[in-house]
Amino acid sequence: MAKKKQILVIGNNEDSSNPALEKIAYDTGMEVAKSGSVLVTGGLGGVMRAACNGAKDAGGLTVGIIPQNDPSFANEFCDIVIPSGLGLARDFVNALSADGVIIIGGGSGTLSETCAAYMYKKPMVAIRNTGGAADRFIDGYVDHRKNVKIIGVDSPKDAVTKILELITA
Amino acid sequence: MAKKKQILVIGNNEDSSNPALEKIAYDTGMEVAKSGSVLVTGGLGGVMRAACNGAKDAGGLTVGIIPQNDPSFANEFCDIVIPSGLGLARDFVNALSADGVIIIGGGSGTLSETCAAYMYKKPMVAIRNTGGAADRFIDGYVDHRKNVKIIGVDSPKDAVTKILELITA
Amino acid sequence: MAKKKQILVIGNNEDSSNPALEKIAYDTGMEVAKSGSVLVTGGLGGVMRAACNGAKDAGGLTVGIIPQNDPSFANEFCDIVIPSGLGLARDFVNALSADGVIIIGGGSGTLSETCAAYMYKKPMVAIRNTGGAADRFIDGYVDHRKNVKIIGVDSPKDAVTKILELITA
Amino acid sequence: MAKKKQILVIGNNEDSSNPALEKIAYDTGMEVAKSGSVLVTGGLGGVMRAACNGAKDAGGLTVGIIPQNDPSFANEFCDIVIPSGLGLARDFVNALSADGVIIIGGGSGTLSETCAAYMYKKPMVAIRNTGGAADRFIDGYVDHRKNVKIIGVDSPKDAVTKILELITA
Repeated sequence: MAKKKQILVIGNNEDSSNPALEKIAYDTGMEVAKSGSVLVTGGLGGVMRAACNGAKDAGGLTVGIIPQNDPSFANEFCDIVIPSGLGLARDFVNALSADGVIIIGGGSGTLSETCAAYMYKKPMVAIRNTGGAADRFIDGYVDHRKNVKIIGVDSPKDAVTKILELITA
Repeated sequence: MAKKKQILVIGNNEDSSNPALEKIAYDTGMEVAKSGSVLVTGGLGGVMRAACNGAKDAGGLTVGIIPQNDPSFANEFCDIVIPSGLGLARDFVNALSADGVIIIGGGSGTLSETCAAYMYKKPMVAIRNTGGAADRFIDGYVDHRKNVKIIGVDSPKDAVTKILELITA
Repeated sequence: MAKKKQILVIGNNEDSSNPALEKIAYDTGMEVAKSGSVLVTGGLGGVMRAACNGAKDAGGLTVGIIPQNDPSFANEFCDIVIPSGLGLARDFVNALSADGVIIIGGGSGTLSETCAAYMYKKPMVAIRNTGGAADRFIDGYVDHRKNVKIIGVDSPKDAVTKILELITA
Repeated sequence: MAKKKQILVIGNNEDSSNPALEKIAYDTGMEVAKSGSVLVTGGLGGVMRAACNGAKDAGGLTVGIIPQNDPSFANEFCDIVIPSGLGLARDFVNALSADGVIIIGGGSGTLSETCAAYMYKKPMVAIRNTGGAADRFIDGYVDHRKNVKIIGVDSPKDAVTKILELITA
């Protein structure tokens, strides 16, 4: 059996700050699970937690790679917890653990992960109109090297369809 | 449902160098899976590969945390691959990802992981008569701090029974 | 005697691609050294190498924190080489090693370091009209959290004066 | 001018627990400085602090690579502080930053650094009769791979003479 794809969903770590964004993240997690892929996130709150919640509600498998030493910092929807002990440098482990990346809004941490994924040439999509890091480079590149184009998509379902297409291309 | 325990199995990375050790590792992976726990390893060859093979043959879930950037370095029995990109410093991520550790033989890498797990106070058992790092501290401590005693066990089955007992104690 | 300040200069890793930028980097390294501060960089080529060259020509002390295991990847103007073995995750070690940061142009790697420094709330200045990452957030913030404002400056001399002022504020 | 050698001194982190060991560490730091080499340590207390103190008293240059994010955890005799933010995984950065290693006593952390240095094939000497990790492998190998022999020496002066000889061999 072919190994399952690992899809990293990145976005903010702010619980309940933006219910619309969390709904998008929940739906994205659900679509990742429905596609038979493994959901990887940074394992904390906000978009990460909502995505894990959606994936679990669809019977999926979730991995949370967190900055801390202590697994109890992970959200309750992570099946596998990797307490990296690396602090925020874990953003690079997240990026490397992705076959492809879906960006939903996000601030400086999401931008850091986007840069990491870009430098490691991972396929990336960003959900339109979610603001922050996701909107910053949509249908463009992080820099002049043009390592990988960040493709804009309109919905969680499109995000998963497109990222799987890019991964297997 | 309670989160599954994550059991780290550590040992050498030398394929086919020691069939007896690989048999023990295979059986240990199988027992980890049968207990309903997740098997975590360093994701490479030798003891790591044999343990993953056993866990998969028993229908378990396996995680490989590897030093490299490229997931293709992981053995073919890893369900989830974490390409840490950290080189051998990934030994510390392995240790932190463990609820408990089972030591099977092993050289300098296994000793490094044993030290990491000891410093982070993880429960540990070592299978007797497997040599190397496993035999070094059996029923003793890595240093005068007595952080955690490394308990000797006689078989793969005993290793998993004992480590689960120590984890939940 | 008070400990010397550690000033991180970040920018591209592309030797000879932009002589004007390298001149600015050289002058910045020289000003860092003249101020009695230690120059920290990512230890590779381009802006990093030019800054180290300038600092050495002014009799300063230079530290290069590189992604590789092998110190020979560092440029020849690094007095101290830290071969992190972490790959690009070393961007976070760079940021943490800074009392303050000077941004000169730069692409995705520089942006990653900017995010890291921002998340760890390090004082930052960016030299105007050097393009890339430096121009992106000038006199603004990386995200809505407003952790730290990136102050625009007009010259290498102003960059060092301003960053030292921000560090000791 | 040839780049200065970077000599890593490793040992326990327990201030005032063993004055005899700290005296040896102080003298070793002093000899490192007198040889014109840079002293690298883990930047904390005990043997690390004493070695840095000795190096500074001889006018040397000292680097401390610490586990924490905050440079204030470093001892007061570090000229350059690298706050790695990696937790104890910084042991691998220490090992990689060494042209050669001097082991003085030490527990599980020192053993972890010894394993890291061994895996990365760094020249190593251990000062005899300092106990702990230093005595464990003296004039022998960490494992069957025989990567690098740990040479026993009788004094701080011999340690520095021997390690420089091994580095340049």
